[in-house]
Amino acid sequence: MKMKVETKFLKLKTSGNTDIIDITSEIQHFLSESGLEEGTVTVSAIGSTASVTTCEFEPGLVKDLKALFEELIPANRHYCHDEAWHDGNGHSHLRASLVGPSKTFIFSDGKLCLGTWQQIIFIDFDARPRQRKIVFQFSGR
Amino acid sequence: MKMKVETKFLKLKTSGNTDIIDITSEIQHFLSESGLEEGTVTVSAIGSTASVTTCEFEPGLVKDLKALFEELIPANRHYCHDEAWHDGNGHSHLRASLVGPSKTFIFSDGKLCLGTWQQIIFIDFDARPRQRKIVFQFSGR
Amino acid sequence: MKMKVETKFLKLKTSGNTDIIDITSEIQHFLSESGLEEGTVTVSAIGSTASVTTCEFEPGLVKDLKALFEELIPANRHYCHDEAWHDGNGHSHLRASLVGPSKTFIFSDGKLCLGTWQQIIFIDFDARPRQRKIVFQFSGR
Repeated sequence: MKMKVETKFLKLKTSGNTDIIDITSEIQHFLSESGLEEGTVTVSAIGSTASVTTCEFEPGLVKDLKALFEELIPANRHYCHDEAWHDGNGHSHLRASLVGPSKTFIFSDGKLCLGTWQQIIFIDFDARPRQRKIVFQFSGR
Repeated sequence: MKMKVETKFLKLKTSGNTDIIDITSEIQHFLSESGLEEGTVTVSAIGSTASVTTCEFEPGLVKDLKALFEELIPANRHYCHDEAWHDGNGHSHLRASLVGPSKTFIFSDGKLCLGTWQQIIFIDFDARPRQRKIVFQFSGR
Repeated sequence: MKMKVETKFLKLKTSGNTDIIDITSEIQHFLSESGLEEGTVTVSAIGSTASVTTCEFEPGLVKDLKALFEELIPANRHYCHDEAWHDGNGHSHLRASLVGPSKTFIFSDGKLCLGTWQQIIFIDFDARPRQRKIVFQFSGR
């Protein structure tokens, strides 16, 4: 059995403001290229105002997710963080710390172990459009 | 040193509605069978309305967790997602995206690195009973 | 290519009560010692009242994070868990289950794939000072 570790980077333009982007097909594409059959892929945002998780990627749920984050951690409120940088993204940091920057997904027989209605999403919580770099690491055989 | 990657599946009947199930002994059992000593196990729900995390699995805390999710993301509220499928599980999706579908746990000397009062739990947030498939992947030596 | 798995433990004194501690330099130190170039490090709290995530570690945001957890899951409220142990840490458990006990981070070229303003933090949600043990597992080549 030959183990392999492969790191890939993806550049992504986002509109910020809890922009939710489906990155499943990019990950499946990298996985196919790697030739790996059994293993994990860790997917991580680089930076402290973005997160990775899964959802059923359909317009209604995307709206619900944005509304949820606005309800739990409102954008228009005073945060102490804004005193440090004055860039008005205190809420972005808090949302990202809560959801977390990274997740690890399993693949088996060369396919991601996801449900039919389950997509891997990148959420950009920052308060402005960003050019993002996401890192993927495949490990397995 | 010989590295090994092993994928296991577990079928589970749940009652849905934030059903919280302790799956620690199943994972420890698979770990013992694998003969691995040092490594990680990634545990992942398949589907977008369930999550994996840890808690002290005792009846009071299980009640508290259910109450927390109901407070943060109420079931009886309008969600845009319901317009797509009319299956009344918008809240289930949101809860699952927030907690996340998967977690990675460390084992060392053949044992999971958990606290005495820490169990690995599967939470089924869906709005109805489900037959679930959970995937575990052990990687190590 | 030679794969390696290495488990390290770190002892840490915390003041509890959502104490937030930057552990990035300790992880980078272990990584340098290991000589690994490409891989992941899984970081896990041992116990059910602590979590691992990332944030920009600056005093304002640390205050904001504490305020957020107090708002979402208040300490001074009745939790059923307190009936089991009477140690007044129901909120600590709920916060830790929500954020999760562990995260997996990628390193490449011997460096953690983090943003410039992104630190790995350990949060002790317990209701009293604790002597903690954190486990790190490096896996890669």
